[in-house]
Amino acid sequence: MRKEATILRPTQNGDRYELTSPTVMPKASGFLWNQKMMIQITCRGYATAQFMQPEPAKYAHAPNIEAKTFMQPEMNYYAHHPGRFVYIKDEDSGHLFSAPYEPVRSSYDRFVFSVGKSDVAWAVEQNGLLVEMVMNLPTDDVAELWTIKVTNISGRSRRISVTPYFPIGYKSWMNQSAEWNPDLNAIVASSVTPYQKASEYFKNKYLKDKTYFICETTPNSWEANQQNFEGEGGLHNPSALQHPQLGGGDARYETPTAAVQYRLALKGGEEREFRFLFGPAYDEAEIQTMRSRYLSKQAFVRTASEYASYMARGQGCLRIETPDKDLDNFVNNWLPRQVFYHGDVNRLTTDPQTRNYLQDNMGMNYIKPQVSRSAFITAVSQQEANGSMPDGILLAEGAELKYINQIPHTDHCVWLPVTLDLYLSETGDYGLLKEEVRTANGDNLTVFERFCRAMDWLLRLRDERGLSYIAQGDWCDPMNMVGYKGKGVSGWLTLGTAYALNIWADVCEHEGQTELAIKYRAGAEECNEAVNKHLWDGDWFARGITDDNVTFGIKKDAEGKIWLNPQSWAILSGAASQEQVARMLPQIDSQLGTPYGVLMFAPPFTKMREDIGRVTQKAIGSAENASVYNHAGVFYIYSLYKLGGQQDRAYNLLRQLIPGPTEADYVQRGQLPVYIPNYYRGAWKEFPRTAGRSSQLFNTGTVSWAYRCFIEGLCGLRGDADGIIIQPQLPSAWNNIKVTRLFRGATFHLDIRRGDVDEVTVHQGGKVLPEPRITNIKAGQTYQLTVLVPQ
Amino acid sequence: MRKEATILRPTQNGDRYELTSPTVMPKASGFLWNQKMMIQITCRGYATAQFMQPEPAKYAHAPNIEAKTFMQPEMNYYAHHPGRFVYIKDEDSGHLFSAPYEPVRSSYDRFVFSVGKSDVAWAVEQNGLLVEMVMNLPTDDVAELWTIKVTNISGRSRRISVTPYFPIGYKSWMNQSAEWNPDLNAIVASSVTPYQKASEYFKNKYLKDKTYFICETTPNSWEANQQNFEGEGGLHNPSALQHPQLGGGDARYETPTAAVQYRLALKGGEEREFRFLFGPAYDEAEIQTMRSRYLSKQAFVRTASEYASYMARGQGCLRIETPDKDLDNFVNNWLPRQVFYHGDVNRLTTDPQTRNYLQDNMGMNYIKPQVSRSAFITAVSQQEANGSMPDGILLAEGAELKYINQIPHTDHCVWLPVTLDLYLSETGDYGLLKEEVRTANGDNLTVFERFCRAMDWLLRLRDERGLSYIAQGDWCDPMNMVGYKGKGVSGWLTLGTAYALNIWADVCEHEGQTELAIKYRAGAEECNEAVNKHLWDGDWFARGITDDNVTFGIKKDAEGKIWLNPQSWAILSGAASQEQVARMLPQIDSQLGTPYGVLMFAPPFTKMREDIGRVTQKAIGSAENASVYNHAGVFYIYSLYKLGGQQDRAYNLLRQLIPGPTEADYVQRGQLPVYIPNYYRGAWKEFPRTAGRSSQLFNTGTVSWAYRCFIEGLCGLRGDADGIIIQPQLPSAWNNIKVTRLFRGATFHLDIRRGDVDEVTVHQGGKVLPEPRITNIKAGQTYQLTVLVPQ
Repeated sequence: MRKEATILRPTQNGDRYELTSPTVMPKASGFLWNQKMMIQITCRGYATAQFMQPEPAKYAHAPNIEAKTFMQPEMNYYAHHPGRFVYIKDEDSGHLFSAPYEPVRSSYDRFVFSVGKSDVAWAVEQNGLLVEMVMNLPTDDVAELWTIKVTNISGRSRRISVTPYFPIGYKSWMNQSAEWNPDLNAIVASSVTPYQKASEYFKNKYLKDKTYFICETTPNSWEANQQNFEGEGGLHNPSALQHPQLGGGDARYETPTAAVQYRLALKGGEEREFRFLFGPAYDEAEIQTMRSRYLSKQAFVRTASEYASYMARGQGCLRIETPDKDLDNFVNNWLPRQVFYHGDVNRLTTDPQTRNYLQDNMGMNYIKPQVSRSAFITAVSQQEANGSMPDGILLAEGAELKYINQIPHTDHCVWLPVTLDLYLSETGDYGLLKEEVRTANGDNLTVFERFCRAMDWLLRLRDERGLSYIAQGDWCDPMNMVGYKGKGVSGWLTLGTAYALNIWADVCEHEGQTELAIKYRAGAEECNEAVNKHLWDGDWFARGITDDNVTFGIKKDAEGKIWLNPQSWAILSGAASQEQVARMLPQIDSQLGTPYGVLMFAPPFTKMREDIGRVTQKAIGSAENASVYNHAGVFYIYSLYKLGGQQDRAYNLLRQLIPGPTEADYVQRGQLPVYIPNYYRGAWKEFPRTAGRSSQLFNTGTVSWAYRCFIEGLCGLRGDADGIIIQPQLPSAWNNIKVTRLFRGATFHLDIRRGDVDEVTVHQGGKVLPEPRITNIKAGQTYQLTVLVPQ
Repeated sequence: MRKEATILRPTQNGDRYELTSPTVMPKASGFLWNQKMMIQITCRGYATAQFMQPEPAKYAHAPNIEAKTFMQPEMNYYAHHPGRFVYIKDEDSGHLFSAPYEPVRSSYDRFVFSVGKSDVAWAVEQNGLLVEMVMNLPTDDVAELWTIKVTNISGRSRRISVTPYFPIGYKSWMNQSAEWNPDLNAIVASSVTPYQKASEYFKNKYLKDKTYFICETTPNSWEANQQNFEGEGGLHNPSALQHPQLGGGDARYETPTAAVQYRLALKGGEEREFRFLFGPAYDEAEIQTMRSRYLSKQAFVRTASEYASYMARGQGCLRIETPDKDLDNFVNNWLPRQVFYHGDVNRLTTDPQTRNYLQDNMGMNYIKPQVSRSAFITAVSQQEANGSMPDGILLAEGAELKYINQIPHTDHCVWLPVTLDLYLSETGDYGLLKEEVRTANGDNLTVFERFCRAMDWLLRLRDERGLSYIAQGDWCDPMNMVGYKGKGVSGWLTLGTAYALNIWADVCEHEGQTELAIKYRAGAEECNEAVNKHLWDGDWFARGITDDNVTFGIKKDAEGKIWLNPQSWAILSGAASQEQVARMLPQIDSQLGTPYGVLMFAPPFTKMREDIGRVTQKAIGSAENASVYNHAGVFYIYSLYKLGGQQDRAYNLLRQLIPGPTEADYVQRGQLPVYIPNYYRGAWKEFPRTAGRSSQLFNTGTVSWAYRCFIEGLCGLRGDADGIIIQPQLPSAWNNIKVTRLFRGATFHLDIRRGDVDEVTVHQGGKVLPEPRITNIKAGQTYQLTVLVPQ
């Protein structure tokens, strides 16, 4: 293990990150996606890919029968984990290494793992040879496009073998096989998705049960049988590589693999480039089609360019230049990309949780507002007759609610106004509210009416104290035992209801529905009062009250004493008075603050608390317990911006959402700053070894809110019905930032700097505007603004 | 890799088998069980263990989230598969090896894998050190008892480290951790079985979610974190072993492991012995209890002796001495052990398939007939009101029908008389028929009445042609598309019905129910006639007719042309005339015979045939497709003995049920001759490389029938209501065998030899008996008989 001088370096404009060691952050990864697939690949070469048919499926598998499960955090890698590797052997000296790093793990001269927005690449030097690997995706198909280039940098002639090894893994207990197919120039693994019921056969009939590895250049030899390939040598030194050529074996109800070998004689400086396609297919005809479509140098170039255009369509509406270059890189390149991913493919599920679906699509307001608009229509078209929203939104025919979506949660309606708020402020399109939407039960109602029904449902589902029932969970790792008997209530949900009602009341008012506005404001007020009456604990708000009337999240609790969400949302809902806020914030700082962000709650649980349940099952030793749960954290940040006057606190917390900027922080978090993970490990006092560690999971409702915090909070650029308001909240250490903001088709260039002003002052074309607000915005126009903010 | 002179050797009396290479039969394994757990462990150290709580669970796991599934054949092993290993390092030279063989796989001086009936052991010599490992189980608890002894056989003083490494694997996505517990002298891994619904919490609450590895001798160091242990070195050369001691790490939402290290200075000839307990527990108190109960030298000795007694209780009712010593070993030691396993623990399921449950318990007639008796009561107590039997018999409170048991199969009633037949012939206990059994629906009927209802149901569930509906399957890898529309019929099931009815008619007659006997015989006759009319294909019987009236398993089929079961059962049911039998047998020989046993059908399918379904999904490349499916094969053997005059054919097929006796055969099958697997690979012409390969799965309905074939067929010792009939069917190459048979409490010593007789002649105390039959058998008495069979 060498100590690297620099382990992580961004490109000039921050649209790539390069990691120069495979060992200091072994799980560091990049990810690519299109509407049909997703792949996450680590610096060491381990990969997790899934594609939609329409349910998530895999074409490269573990060596055993894996459970079908939702995407797990902190994936564990092991020798036979699926990955993409190439063995390089000097056929004279016998020296063997592998790129990127696994499975041989030998000592390298140079290592670069390079994550771009539309590709993932490596450059590995060892034993006088340079191996460059690049992975691209097509825009509309399920396939990985791999380029593997080997250059002899030793200055002398070499005889080497180059052996790409793409394990396919255990495909099926019902049937699996693999062999070299000379017509396709490919290893083709076949299988039958297992089923028991005859009816499942018809469901499975057209699944892509084959995995192909197509070679542009015909290899000298190949091996389709995992066991043959490894032999007694094992993955770090495969027996097949001890022979003059691979054995040409097949797999017959044995574990398939794809290994092909090229034997090369390279003069000094000579290079050879190989291209491969790896992916799933229904039959050989489809494999042939994929080969024709993609497997050539020109096709690779064309595909990469198409894919880059696809990614460019998701580049967001904000560019910033601030004193914090790492933050600029993240906000300008990676955050909108992650927002786009969420809105573009809905986490590649067919039944996204309703709250996720709404928030993921909220982010799309900044990229493609028409997508957000459709999402509202889709969501409310699945509203129940009683006004409630289902636990998940079904996006494909035959999709079913799975996993946690089978558990009743009571918060989904809250997210309707909370996310609509951004749609309206970004587009001013109140016309959406007039759209009629028919549900399966036959009801035909406008979006406006549907939102009212949802609000009425939230108001109804409260107990005699005015507090919202929690049932088996609300949000942010639900506590499934608080209210499973039907009595327990959620402090957060009551506040969420109040916040939603207030937003909705504003909309009602805008729509001229004054009586409704009054009714919903009164409802919000009632909620806030109930929370203040029953859940204010002196310095912060409690989290809830159980079925058996035990209030929790309070001072006298030894564990789970203070929870973040009730505090943030008490600020958003207006429940917290200024005096209460003044008491809450220092408690949040001291009890929930960590070097890696703000904890969801503290102190962590060490054992099950039966009257709360699930979250306490994830007790010490579990990552999500008392973690820096970013989705909760970002709402705290959002609430601080809404509150105003908290720009330093807010900026510091925003900064903590992404790894870095110090090397120590990168290493501790173990993640490249190319996405925000759903959590960082908490328990930083109890378990400093693991604290801060990234979940490595890029699916998170955090990102649309983080983007919103930057745009609406830090840059202070929020739309209203007729224009855009300018209220930046720069951290006190900053004197100047430059911002480009796309808004309703216009481009705003803002030079924001501190000036001798008492309030935000906007200059346009040498003139001072009467208020920090631009109206009558013309699409296509560019606005040059100088914005002075108080010293 | 050395070529071993002898790779497999039995002990003198065949109650152990020793394999002297870990590579020629890498999956060769032994298995131990008690009523609460089962473990199968390979010669190389990979292990698969499960315990009942009451559903099958694991305490050592794969490195990823494994699917819960039924026991799979041909398990795939890979570097991180669960196993039990010990690393031995010479701390002066740095030489490292591991026992038994994985994970280091280094070259050994001597290797012995020794499978006994109540232990599994290894002796491995390498680098002047002898490592002996022994695994025992307790009789009534879930735990593995491990002895690891290291002897310095180098003749000089050595400094070594001994590092047992028992990976625990991925326990739970909800919570997992592990650490050294000094009070317990153990590594303890903790977890929470994941759940989503609050109700599941209560179901899971008392699961044994901890895994312990307790040391009798306190180690010098330990490591509870898998990643720390491996480091960059990997399992074949763990980084932790590069340091003076293990790192003492813990696992916090990381993969747990159990590795402990002893540093020893051993003089020449000196040895050290260590004992460990490995297993699951609910809490630390239970771990403490297990430690006190089992973890000492005396306790190990006591436990081994208790376990040996437990195994002895299952030693069966037959001992043979024949010219075929390997067969003797198998029949005297291993076959009754496997029969006992099936009857003792019902494959460690809570919902055994009804046909399996009845047949597994049938075998217990030869060991503990009272168990078989209770099984009938249990089975019929779950009979449906309409007379049908459920797809599985629930054995534990809260158990549910799982996997294939959720698919309706129509054959279960057949197995009632077919297995009762042996109960009655073994015990003469017709009293069972008078027992009253109440079902959940309130019906209170005698066993006799329940069997009548089952027979009536079988008679009813036939179409207008008199053929039995197949629905989604009958038996032996059901063809799920033949009759899913409700019309398709099964030739085999119609014959099975006839066979069952005939047996039942005999019982009715014995019970004086002549009219019923006539009715059921007429029913059988009708079935046989229907099969002859619709399914006789000229040289054999067809397998069935689909919903769309397509007959299959016939000459004009290119694949799946001939099926074994309809032929065997046409013999058993009486459907096949002598002339038909004379046509069938050569076809079976030529089309279905292989060096490894008789195929279930041929030729193998190469692709899906939609009107047949599932079995054809398991097309070429799948093992069960056209395999030597022993359960089908053993019925053919049984039918040959019933037919008579087929002793050579029958013996040769019986012999093929077990691997050997040649080394080539052992190697090709890859299994020790300590059990009959559920299949050997077929497709021997198409895929000779894999043909004959054992499924390595010891759960199979084959074994009770195989034992029955030896006892009732080859030795010809079948009971009737009043005694025992003696009709041996020796293969023509044998002149003499000696048999000891326990029957109704008496012991029969038979000296069976060829003599100048026309029919079987029995001599007792110098006298010739009037018929080859002993009646008035006295429990406790010993009978010495000389039996002459025709030349």
